[in-house]
Amino acid sequence: MNVSVEKWGLFEAEFPGPVEGNPFAEARLSAVFSDGAASVEVPGFYDGAGSYRIRFMPDRRGEWRFATKSGDASLDGIEGAFSCIENKAGNHGPVGLREEFHFRYADGKPYFPFGTTCYAWIHQSRELQELTLRTLAASPFNKLRMCVFPKHYDYNHNEPELYPFPGSPEAGFDVTRFNPAFFRHLERRILDLQGLGVECDLILFHPYDRWGFSDLGPEADERYLRYLVSRLSAFRNVWWSMANEYDLFIREDGSVKKDADEWDRLGRLVQEQDPYGHPRSIHNCLKLYDHSKSWVTHSSIQRIDHYKTAENTAEWRDLYGKPVVIDECAYEGNINHGWGNIPGQEMTRRFWEGCARGGYVGHGETYVHPRDILWWSHGGELHGSSPARIAFLRGIVESAPGPLEPVPKPAGSLFNPNWDVAAGRAGEDYYLFYFGFCQPSFRVFDLDPGKAYRVEIIDTWEMTIRELEGRFLGKFRVEMPGKPYIAVRIARAD
Amino acid sequence: MNVSVEKWGLFEAEFPGPVEGNPFAEARLSAVFSDGAASVEVPGFYDGAGSYRIRFMPDRRGEWRFATKSGDASLDGIEGAFSCIENKAGNHGPVGLREEFHFRYADGKPYFPFGTTCYAWIHQSRELQELTLRTLAASPFNKLRMCVFPKHYDYNHNEPELYPFPGSPEAGFDVTRFNPAFFRHLERRILDLQGLGVECDLILFHPYDRWGFSDLGPEADERYLRYLVSRLSAFRNVWWSMANEYDLFIREDGSVKKDADEWDRLGRLVQEQDPYGHPRSIHNCLKLYDHSKSWVTHSSIQRIDHYKTAENTAEWRDLYGKPVVIDECAYEGNINHGWGNIPGQEMTRRFWEGCARGGYVGHGETYVHPRDILWWSHGGELHGSSPARIAFLRGIVESAPGPLEPVPKPAGSLFNPNWDVAAGRAGEDYYLFYFGFCQPSFRVFDLDPGKAYRVEIIDTWEMTIRELEGRFLGKFRVEMPGKPYIAVRIARAD
Repeated sequence: MNVSVEKWGLFEAEFPGPVEGNPFAEARLSAVFSDGAASVEVPGFYDGAGSYRIRFMPDRRGEWRFATKSGDASLDGIEGAFSCIENKAGNHGPVGLREEFHFRYADGKPYFPFGTTCYAWIHQSRELQELTLRTLAASPFNKLRMCVFPKHYDYNHNEPELYPFPGSPEAGFDVTRFNPAFFRHLERRILDLQGLGVECDLILFHPYDRWGFSDLGPEADERYLRYLVSRLSAFRNVWWSMANEYDLFIREDGSVKKDADEWDRLGRLVQEQDPYGHPRSIHNCLKLYDHSKSWVTHSSIQRIDHYKTAENTAEWRDLYGKPVVIDECAYEGNINHGWGNIPGQEMTRRFWEGCARGGYVGHGETYVHPRDILWWSHGGELHGSSPARIAFLRGIVESAPGPLEPVPKPAGSLFNPNWDVAAGRAGEDYYLFYFGFCQPSFRVFDLDPGKAYRVEIIDTWEMTIRELEGRFLGKFRVEMPGKPYIAVRIARAD
Repeated sequence: MNVSVEKWGLFEAEFPGPVEGNPFAEARLSAVFSDGAASVEVPGFYDGAGSYRIRFMPDRRGEWRFATKSGDASLDGIEGAFSCIENKAGNHGPVGLREEFHFRYADGKPYFPFGTTCYAWIHQSRELQELTLRTLAASPFNKLRMCVFPKHYDYNHNEPELYPFPGSPEAGFDVTRFNPAFFRHLERRILDLQGLGVECDLILFHPYDRWGFSDLGPEADERYLRYLVSRLSAFRNVWWSMANEYDLFIREDGSVKKDADEWDRLGRLVQEQDPYGHPRSIHNCLKLYDHSKSWVTHSSIQRIDHYKTAENTAEWRDLYGKPVVIDECAYEGNINHGWGNIPGQEMTRRFWEGCARGGYVGHGETYVHPRDILWWSHGGELHGSSPARIAFLRGIVESAPGPLEPVPKPAGSLFNPNWDVAAGRAGEDYYLFYFGFCQPSFRVFDLDPGKAYRVEIIDTWEMTIRELEGRFLGKFRVEMPGKPYIAVRIARAD
């Protein structure tokens, strides 16, 4: 074979195999890939119509060989090889952790998540899906939260074109088998996102359900996860979000569909099945998940307070010792629900409050639309005022000399001098102070008297950066515009 | 004698007496007042220059007689009488509690506190004091927080004209005696406020001190409180605030000037000494006081969180079972400190958040001024945008059919339908919903299907009220303007 695959690209091999029984349900195929230095066993999957597939994401250039393993003779011991070549520009590999609280791509490039949410966009019309991709391409967003299953909720009552299981709402679904056409569509969309540089934060379960997919039972849940991870883990831009609102999986009689132990079991299952260690988390409604659990790589947080959310970033970093990703801080919009009607100013403020404290915040949008096309769930177009400001913030975060960390309180002092400001620091000599809704006309900073700093006034709403004349050192006063949504950036000049 | 005093007015009798020893320090004089139905013993005080005084606030019309009691023969057994006549318009008597969470005047008129703060206004120039009174007269404020002692703090470095004790900063103060001229000035200002219909929320101790008045020791503290209460409790518009920032009375060596037990003792002392039961509380910095203590009549709260304050009103009502008065929710202004640079929009929002939940919020203002005259401490003029909006809110609160109480969560439901809105109710048929920074374009309300309601859209920032056409009942949709700072008022129409 003369197949070549770029580093962190997707190698795929297809094998004809038996159709007897239920090939979807049984893990009949795996393969061990080796480049001589390392070997990795990856699961295969049945793609219907007698076709079995193995996917693999190589992380090192050179010659890779593989051999299949199967209890079925026709699938066992098949050998093959491919060349892993230099990754193309724009392919930085999968995202993983960077130190304790941040992310980086596998090639070392820092990754700062600026996510948004289109829960059910792959279940909308093809035209709308294409529009969503065009909108994403022009947006600042580099992560998208989206559901595998279709969604049943306010503003969401359409039937999808494809279901993950064979069957129909009328005839019922055979949840012991899968619908390859559905997964091929999902994979196409994941690749579309990959092409845009967008991480796919895939929500594996959610409670907005009229088809029964939120309550398949432990056996079918496990079968579904094994199948999904076998198909998708070789896509470098996949993240695993075990659930949206894990704490709302409640039956009409009040009983719980998946309890804490079950979420833990399912999370560990995904961890074990995924050879590449894609980021893993789970998203709450009323009660934060215990993100200190070992299978969780980063916290995924929905605001649990209508008023205060991203301001808690430093506390959540301390609590879990992991990156804080506030995936849902509410939605910019004007619908009836309080989670979906904050103005662009408040969305932008929440982004800054979180980022300046060393965390990450996610966007979403819910403006009333004549045809009920709300970005939050359907995709389509963006109408709000925050995305431009989020782009501006992303530029600032990405141009810092490193990831932001909260400025620590000086040892031995009763008051934290930064009690009233989101204060971040990147390295020793770069500070970002964000004042939110406050409107100081001046501020006194107390920095190293042995270093000369340059000071810039950032209007986070007007998206302007103005450098003050001169150099500043020690304890110095900065004149400020006396209006809300101002940040001060201070960096060593000498 | 043909003296007549209006009901809840101030009767005063003066007696010459001995000047030997320290007449300030010893409670040498009291008097029992009786109208035949009730008798009240009130303490007298020494006013300097051989003059002793007894003050009394009658609460019933008719003939009152009194007789003095003293260990000194020249002051003992003096009898007198006066007529208590009808109170004048505008005199509603002292403020007391109304049911569990609200206030009323003694004549039954509801009192809704809309307070502001001018900590050290009586220690400024006479001209500035007069300007403060003129500003108050044109303001919506009916309560003023103010300190007895002068203040030493940022922006506050002037020496006052008068001190409560004889002496001077240079020569020191004799804290075993008092300076009657100081107290006469204080009393004049209390009466000035009374004439404006403003309750005087008098702060008896505060920690902003370079004269030693925050650390007099238990004996001098007690002497001071006895003297103060003897002089002032007959003024109907006095409230007792034991301290500003009770938890900041800390010496340079870290030791505490007054601990929790001492505040409790001093609070109970004031309670015992005051025959009229004026409202009593104590104000915090970092940690809320335990307002469930029996001597506390209402909570007096400074925000303990930079972001979220008045939104906690219902929780604090539940916690203490007393009226919630958020005396300091931060200051509208533009100074360097985060407690003093919120915009008028945020101040107004905090007022609405608290009031719609059945609490009360206090105003203050700290705009940078060329001569450092900041309303918060010095009085003077108001420059902010919130007072006009607070006046508008006060009109709405006072025109409701009763005090607002939080709308309770429906029994047995998982979600509170009002989780995202400050929802108040006055009686059974009047609702006030406040949406804060959110911008819903519509909202569905679910009220009694057997009642017809009128619905009004209140723009709390633009200060407009617009009634919607028609009558509404049961579950109904209200179109809203899709902008922040909107309230919806719903009242029964039939």
